[in-house]
Amino acid sequence: MRYITGGIALGSALILGSLVGAGTSATAAPATAPAPAAQQSLYAPSALVLTVAQGESSTNSGVQRAVTLTCMPKPGGTHPDARGACNELRAAGGKFEDITKVKAGTACTKEWNPYVVTAEGVWEGQRVKFEHTFGNTCELKAGKGIVFEF
Amino acid sequence: MRYITGGIALGSALILGSLVGAGTSATAAPATAPAPAAQQSLYAPSALVLTVAQGESSTNSGVQRAVTLTCMPKPGGTHPDARGACNELRAAGGKFEDITKVKAGTACTKEWNPYVVTAEGVWEGQRVKFEHTFGNTCELKAGKGIVFEF
Repeated sequence: MRYITGGIALGSALILGSLVGAGTSATAAPATAPAPAAQQSLYAPSALVLTVAQGESSTNSGVQRAVTLTCMPKPGGTHPDARGACNELRAAGGKFEDITKVKAGTACTKEWNPYVVTAEGVWEGQRVKFEHTFGNTCELKAGKGIVFEF
Repeated sequence: MRYITGGIALGSALILGSLVGAGTSATAAPATAPAPAAQQSLYAPSALVLTVAQGESSTNSGVQRAVTLTCMPKPGGTHPDARGACNELRAAGGKFEDITKVKAGTACTKEWNPYVVTAEGVWEGQRVKFEHTFGNTCELKAGKGIVFEF
């Protein structure tokens, strides 16, 4: 997939090319300049890798589980509930920190048995580099949402 | 999916549990200890997001194209040739820098029109954070391999 402006630019170029081509065939040539036309897309790319691991941070923990998630043109990837995860992400405007916020009124003990979740890749054309540490499994359960439920 | 050692540990526990269980039923209980058994896997997780962008580095460039790639238990993701990409990655032992090495004997001009490719996520249980800049489209074409061909 290619970023949305690229798609629009190509679209315009093709339209322009067709219009110009109707007048003179020689000037229609520039319309074919953007080479990989088949890979153009009107969608901004969204492609994510989500991980869950036991540990304090991603740098000092292995990876226990990892899934892929794509949301455009339709939900997909190895995430067990891609549709639900995409809806949740869209509702949060792509803000992972909103999703992992432990809901008010949640009662969790304070023991330290940390779990770290990460999201990397691209969300609607913007690079994503997210990491959040939950203090224990209770907090993880309360804050993982659908996105980190795998 | 869960890291391979976890899978093996569970497998061993189950075998051990069965063996012990054949003798005395009471001692078979520990075999069920690792809680989320349904999520266990013998495969180490591999889940990647690959991107291509025009620019010098990922921090100062948008994302033009992004795909997901998973290789276990079978090739998948939005990569157009997931099977080929997985084979190439496996042959390189997961070393992205080997894949993006421009082959000896390649003749490219030296103009500066950079493209940056990135790989993030997990490869066989290990976190991946890879970035490589090609000086121009000739170098990109010579060094992108199957992995970055999308």
